[in-house]
Amino acid sequence: MPGPLSLDTERSNVRVAYQGSPGTVIEAMVLKAFPNCTALPHKRSEGALEAVESSLADKAVLTIENSSIGSFHQSYDMLLSHNLQIVQEVQMDVELCLLALPGVQKDDLQTIFSHPQDLAQCEYSLCKLGVSKKNVDHGYAGAETISKQDLRDAGVIGNGRAAELYGLNILECNFQDASPNVTRYLVLARTANIPKEQGQYKTSIVFGLEESPGTLYKALVAFWKRDLNLTKIESRPNRGKPMRTLGTEKQFNYIFYVDLEASMAEIRTQNALKELEEIASFLRVLGCYPCTTI
Amino acid sequence: MPGPLSLDTERSNVRVAYQGSPGTVIEAMVLKAFPNCTALPHKRSEGALEAVESSLADKAVLTIENSSIGSFHQSYDMLLSHNLQIVQEVQMDVELCLLALPGVQKDDLQTIFSHPQDLAQCEYSLCKLGVSKKNVDHGYAGAETISKQDLRDAGVIGNGRAAELYGLNILECNFQDASPNVTRYLVLARTANIPKEQGQYKTSIVFGLEESPGTLYKALVAFWKRDLNLTKIESRPNRGKPMRTLGTEKQFNYIFYVDLEASMAEIRTQNALKELEEIASFLRVLGCYPCTTI
Repeated sequence: MPGPLSLDTERSNVRVAYQGSPGTVIEAMVLKAFPNCTALPHKRSEGALEAVESSLADKAVLTIENSSIGSFHQSYDMLLSHNLQIVQEVQMDVELCLLALPGVQKDDLQTIFSHPQDLAQCEYSLCKLGVSKKNVDHGYAGAETISKQDLRDAGVIGNGRAAELYGLNILECNFQDASPNVTRYLVLARTANIPKEQGQYKTSIVFGLEESPGTLYKALVAFWKRDLNLTKIESRPNRGKPMRTLGTEKQFNYIFYVDLEASMAEIRTQNALKELEEIASFLRVLGCYPCTTI
Repeated sequence: MPGPLSLDTERSNVRVAYQGSPGTVIEAMVLKAFPNCTALPHKRSEGALEAVESSLADKAVLTIENSSIGSFHQSYDMLLSHNLQIVQEVQMDVELCLLALPGVQKDDLQTIFSHPQDLAQCEYSLCKLGVSKKNVDHGYAGAETISKQDLRDAGVIGNGRAAELYGLNILECNFQDASPNVTRYLVLARTANIPKEQGQYKTSIVFGLEESPGTLYKALVAFWKRDLNLTKIESRPNRGKPMRTLGTEKQFNYIFYVDLEASMAEIRTQNALKELEEIASFLRVLGCYPCTTI
């Protein structure tokens, strides 16, 4: 697999959009993966993706999966609703800390304000603390609230940089339930990678199927018979038409996100997708990309 | 598919455990699916499952998937961490309402207290309202808080019964983002179904794979070559060991939850599972069950 140098670090002015704000875990990932970039915070992931679509940014970063809590379903939906290409996968081991105002002890805490996904990665630890959880929509709204309102019975989940930015103390490091706690991020751009013939790439696709039984079987045969391994299959209800009727029966109408251990430069991948296209109600290649651990 | 009568309605004293409290959507499902049952509310899903394990209840109900927001990952983890069998799948179209104290108008609302999954099903509607969201852990903690503390700037997502129980008004019906908004529930029991030779059943399994590339391909071939269709595949990081090393590369260590359109009474299902067992690091049949829409 290509090392960190395969990231677009040569361009010092690359503009990378992300959902969050300074002091968030995803900002830390952006600065580590693209050391000389201009990091552009957005309140919502849609905003980050739209910034790339309208050329206000060069790349956008999307959190797709965490080893403790699994897939970020909304990110899967966004891959489909936006017209961008995955150009890179980045994995990072994420350490989460428990933060509060200086002088505040763990026993003082009644409420933890954080993004629902950060709360979920610390579920067991929060349960032990016996605190109530309050969702915040974006970035360090929680840290800002605690800091501005001088809340001495509230804490937030974050990292060292957030503590520094908002004048908070670290009450506990490695507060997440499991270690390692690895998050997979996807880097999106307007233009697809042109993969080299050699070299290890992943290819991500999404497809729907006609309304007849047994079609997932037929769809995946296109890969099996070409020895194309799948690393992940994600079944997701089709948001536009979540249910379908088969005879008298109502069934979930799934779309399937599949990650292949193969490059689009390989003939077998191209042939498999041609075959799949014949039986799929739709098929889209979301990207062909190398994977990097930082 | 068997109709509603296939549910265990003949036993008037069947004890059905669920996570929630009177007035929750899942309580409404339990009372509709098991009209004469004793419904046993629990603060946490684990409690409901443990009640069945220790014979304090006959069945437990677990929310597994919703057509708008997708899989309930924690329920998948619980299927693995508890030793119960899926004996029935129940689908129900769920209508969610926006509730508040009498006299309170939509414009007065600042905060909505609800279970994170109910909040997620109403994300767009809540965004339009411009309110902040506060997670509550279980049941109608939110409705109770609003009612007891006479909060006139807060609302809750629920149904007509919750409004009645907590003295709230319905401000808007069908408040969820999409209709239909179908939820799939699994009914769990200590003893597995003995499926009839004839009749449509689903079989759910979970398996892990050895640490070598290409094994998902080999695992699924066991089904393809017997024409066994899969309706859903869920890839989930293995909570016990979420990462694995392949050469110099770190990869997510997935386990796979698969729903088959087949009964365990069929020889082809039994043979496919025997073949899968040879290459799987573990394999468990989670249940073989009919599906009902109520």
